[in-house]
Amino acid sequence: MTSHQPPLWRRAVAELLGTALLVSIVVGSGIAAAQLSPNDVGLQLLQNSTATVLGLTVLILVFGPVSGAHFNPVVSLVDWFLGRSTRTGLSLAEVGTYVIAQVIGAIGGSVLANAMFEVGTSISVKDRATSGHLLGEVVATAGLIVLIFALAATNRGALAAPAVGAYIGAAYWFTSSTSFANPAVTVGRIFSDTFAGIAPGSVPGFVVAQLIGAALGIGVLALLFPTASRAADDIVIPHSLEKTGA
Amino acid sequence: MTSHQPPLWRRAVAELLGTALLVSIVVGSGIAAAQLSPNDVGLQLLQNSTATVLGLTVLILVFGPVSGAHFNPVVSLVDWFLGRSTRTGLSLAEVGTYVIAQVIGAIGGSVLANAMFEVGTSISVKDRATSGHLLGEVVATAGLIVLIFALAATNRGALAAPAVGAYIGAAYWFTSSTSFANPAVTVGRIFSDTFAGIAPGSVPGFVVAQLIGAALGIGVLALLFPTASRAADDIVIPHSLEKTGA
Amino acid sequence: MTSHQPPLWRRAVAELLGTALLVSIVVGSGIAAAQLSPNDVGLQLLQNSTATVLGLTVLILVFGPVSGAHFNPVVSLVDWFLGRSTRTGLSLAEVGTYVIAQVIGAIGGSVLANAMFEVGTSISVKDRATSGHLLGEVVATAGLIVLIFALAATNRGALAAPAVGAYIGAAYWFTSSTSFANPAVTVGRIFSDTFAGIAPGSVPGFVVAQLIGAALGIGVLALLFPTASRAADDIVIPHSLEKTGA
Amino acid sequence: MTSHQPPLWRRAVAELLGTALLVSIVVGSGIAAAQLSPNDVGLQLLQNSTATVLGLTVLILVFGPVSGAHFNPVVSLVDWFLGRSTRTGLSLAEVGTYVIAQVIGAIGGSVLANAMFEVGTSISVKDRATSGHLLGEVVATAGLIVLIFALAATNRGALAAPAVGAYIGAAYWFTSSTSFANPAVTVGRIFSDTFAGIAPGSVPGFVVAQLIGAALGIGVLALLFPTASRAADDIVIPHSLEKTGA
Repeated sequence: MTSHQPPLWRRAVAELLGTALLVSIVVGSGIAAAQLSPNDVGLQLLQNSTATVLGLTVLILVFGPVSGAHFNPVVSLVDWFLGRSTRTGLSLAEVGTYVIAQVIGAIGGSVLANAMFEVGTSISVKDRATSGHLLGEVVATAGLIVLIFALAATNRGALAAPAVGAYIGAAYWFTSSTSFANPAVTVGRIFSDTFAGIAPGSVPGFVVAQLIGAALGIGVLALLFPTASRAADDIVIPHSLEKTGA
Repeated sequence: MTSHQPPLWRRAVAELLGTALLVSIVVGSGIAAAQLSPNDVGLQLLQNSTATVLGLTVLILVFGPVSGAHFNPVVSLVDWFLGRSTRTGLSLAEVGTYVIAQVIGAIGGSVLANAMFEVGTSISVKDRATSGHLLGEVVATAGLIVLIFALAATNRGALAAPAVGAYIGAAYWFTSSTSFANPAVTVGRIFSDTFAGIAPGSVPGFVVAQLIGAALGIGVLALLFPTASRAADDIVIPHSLEKTGA
Repeated sequence: MTSHQPPLWRRAVAELLGTALLVSIVVGSGIAAAQLSPNDVGLQLLQNSTATVLGLTVLILVFGPVSGAHFNPVVSLVDWFLGRSTRTGLSLAEVGTYVIAQVIGAIGGSVLANAMFEVGTSISVKDRATSGHLLGEVVATAGLIVLIFALAATNRGALAAPAVGAYIGAAYWFTSSTSFANPAVTVGRIFSDTFAGIAPGSVPGFVVAQLIGAALGIGVLALLFPTASRAADDIVIPHSLEKTGA
Repeated sequence: MTSHQPPLWRRAVAELLGTALLVSIVVGSGIAAAQLSPNDVGLQLLQNSTATVLGLTVLILVFGPVSGAHFNPVVSLVDWFLGRSTRTGLSLAEVGTYVIAQVIGAIGGSVLANAMFEVGTSISVKDRATSGHLLGEVVATAGLIVLIFALAATNRGALAAPAVGAYIGAAYWFTSSTSFANPAVTVGRIFSDTFAGIAPGSVPGFVVAQLIGAALGIGVLALLFPTASRAADDIVIPHSLEKTGA
C-alpha cells in the first residue's frame, strides 16, 4: 500500500459503509421480493438478483477510489496474499481493519434493511449448508477471485464495477447456493429472518467453503495469469484522489 | 456557473423536458405494468423499475450536455451548496429556475402518461408515508447524492448516466419506499391515480425525508471525498456544446 | 455523403439485413414469449422488450460501420433533413434506397421469424390505432430522433448502440403503443399474426404519428442543440472501414 | 498465431475452464429456474437467459486475454479460416487442441452443475431437432459469427464481451431453438437431463445447422466487411499479457 492511499480510517469507513449498503441491497430487495411476489420464489430471486447486479456495480464505483471496494474479507486476504512479496497489497494489519469494518457494516446493513421494511431484526432460521450448496460456494468464490485479480493483472481494473456486478448476478443462478461468496455478507445475513437470511449453523460451512474457493481461485490465477501477484487495490480503480490531494 | 454554459432558458427547457419524460417513464410504465400483469405486484415493480433504469440512463445522456440533467431539486440544491465557495456550481437564483422547471415538467409528465394510456388525470389516493418508507427515502436520497458527487469528485462524471440509472433500479427494490428520492418527481406523481401515484398527504413527509437524506449524503461526501466541493454540472457531462459555440 | 462511405449497394444490404434481423428479434421473441408464458401478457412484454434491448444494441454495433444502422425510414429522412445544407447527410436518392431496403428487410424479418417458429406467415388482425396509442407513437418517435441526433451533435455517437437499445426498452413500457417508432418495422410487423403483429388498418395512423413525432423531435433538437444539423451517419459510428480501404 | 501468444497449453486450459463455466452457467441456471419457478416455462427461460448474458460477458472478459475466449469450435474454425492466408489466425492443429479442450470442458461443466444442484448426471431425453429449431440454429450461429468478426474487422474487439453476451441473450428468445450456436456446448448439454439438456439424437442436426450457419456468416462478412479476413484472437482482446511477459 503506497503513501498515496487515503488514510486507513477513511478506507475503513468506506468498507463499512459499502458492505452495509451491499447487505441492505441484498436483504432489502429480498424482503421486497417476498412481500410483492409471494407465489413464485423464482421471480423473487430474479428481483433480488437484478437489484444486486445494479446496486453492487454502483457501490464499487462509489467506494472503489477510497478503499478498493472489497466489501469482502476473502478479497482483502487475497489482495494481501498476491501482493505480499512486492508490498503492493494490503498489509496483514490492514486486512484485519478491513475485515472488522466489513463485518460491522454487514450486520448494520441487515439491521437497516429490517428497519426500512419494519420487519424487526431477528436471527434467521434458514438452513443452507447442504453439500451441493457448499460446492456452490467454492465455485462462486473461486470465480469471484479469478475475475477480480484477472482484471487487475491485465490492467482492466476499470471494468471491475460492472463485471463484478454481472458475475454475482449470474452466480445467484448457476451456483446452487445463490452465491454468498463473502464471509462478511454471510455473517450479516444471519441478522434478518427473511428471504436472504442464513441460519447461524450454516455459516461456518459457508465460510470454510469460501476460503477453499479463494485458494482454488489463487491456483487458477497462478496457472493462467502468472503475473497476477499485483495488488488489486492498486489497480482496480484509478486513484483519482491522489491527484486531488485527498 | 461559467460563461461557457448554455443560456439559462435553454437549460431550464432541458430540465423541464427531461423531468417530464422521467415522470412519464415512471408513471407510464407503472400503468402498463398494472394493466398487463394484474396478478403480481412484484412483477409490476420489476417492469416499472426495468423501464426506469433504461429510460433514466438515456435521459441523462440526452439532456446532460445542456443542463447537467439534474431533474431533481435536491441535486440542484446540493450542486449549489458544494460549489458555493468556488463559484463552480449553480447560483441560488439558477437553482430556483431549475426547481420551477423541474416541478412543472414533473406534473406535465404525469399528464402525458395519463393521456397516452387514456386513464385521465386525477389525484392519487395512495398513502405512502409510513415510518419505514420515510427511512427508505432518507437512505435512497443520501445514496443518490453520494453517487453523483462522488463521481464528480473523482472525474468520472461520464459514468453518471448508467450509474444513476442502475442506482435507481436497485433502490426501487432495497428501499421500502421504492425510492422516489426526488421532490419534483414526488409532486409530479401526485397527478396520476395509478400504480406509481402518491397521495398529496404523503408528499410533505417524503420531501422532508429527501432533504434529510441530502444532508446526510453531504456528510458522507465530506467524510470520504474531502474534495467533493466541486460542482457536479461542471463535471458530470463533458460540455461538448462549448466547442460548438452553443 | 462523402466518398469515404462504403458503396451504396453495400449500405443497402446492411440496412436490409439489419432491419430484417430487428424485426425477427421483435416478432420472434414475441412468439416465444406468448408460447412460453401464456398466462401473463406483462411477462410476455418483459421478455419481448428485454430481447429487443439486447438485440437492437448488437445490430447497431454490427451494421453501424457499414450503413449507419438506421433500420428506420424516419431516421434516414431526418438524417437527410438535418444534413441537407452542409451536404453531410444522405441525399434524397440515398434515402429512397435506404427506405426500400428497410421495408423489404422488415417484411423478410417477419417471414423468417414465422418460419423459425413454424407458425406460418399471415396478416395480423391486431388493431392498435387508438388515440392513446397514436399519441404514444408521436412521443416514442420524437424521443428516438432527439436521442440519436443529440448524441451525434455532441460527438458521442459511439454510445448510440446501447443508448438506442435502452431507449426502445423503456419506450416499450412507457408509451402505450409499445413504441413501434419506425415505419418500416411497422409494415414488417403486418406479416405475422402473433404477439407483435399489427393489423394493416392500423398502419397508416401509426406511420403518420411517427412522422409527426419526427417533426417534433427536429423541433426539440433545434431548441436544445442548435448545432444538430450534422448528419448522424458521419458521426454515429467511427468509420473504421475507411482505414481498411473498404 | 504470433509468438506473443501465451503457450498453447495455457490457452487450452483457458478454453477448457471457460467452456466448462459457460455450460455450468447455462445448465445450472436452468436447473435453478425450473426448481424455483415450476409453473411458468417463459419465466424460467428469462432467468436462464439473464444469467447467461451476465455470465458469458464475464467469462469473455476473464479468459479473453489468454485464449481469445472462443469457447466454441465454430468460432475457432472461422478464426482459422479467415486468418489462414495472412497467418494471423489459429493453425488447424491449434484448432484441434481448442476443440478438444472445449468439448471436455463443456461436458465437465454439465457434471459440475449437476453436482452443485445434486441432481445426478444422466443423459438428456429432450428432443429438440425440429425443422424450425434447425433453422433457428443456422440463424443464431450466422449472427454470432458475423458479430464477432465484424467487431474484429472494425477494431472494436474490446466490445466483444458485452456484445456477445447481449447477442446470446437476444438469440435465446428470437431463435426458436433458444440458440445453442455452439457444437461443444451442444455436446456438453447432453449430460444433464434438465431444463437445458438436449437428447443425443438431436445433436447431429444441431451441429450441422451450426456449421451451415457459420458458412452463411462467412458469406455475410465477405459481403459487408471485405477486410474481415483478420484473425479474431489477434484483435478481440488486447493482449495485455504480452507486456507482462506471460
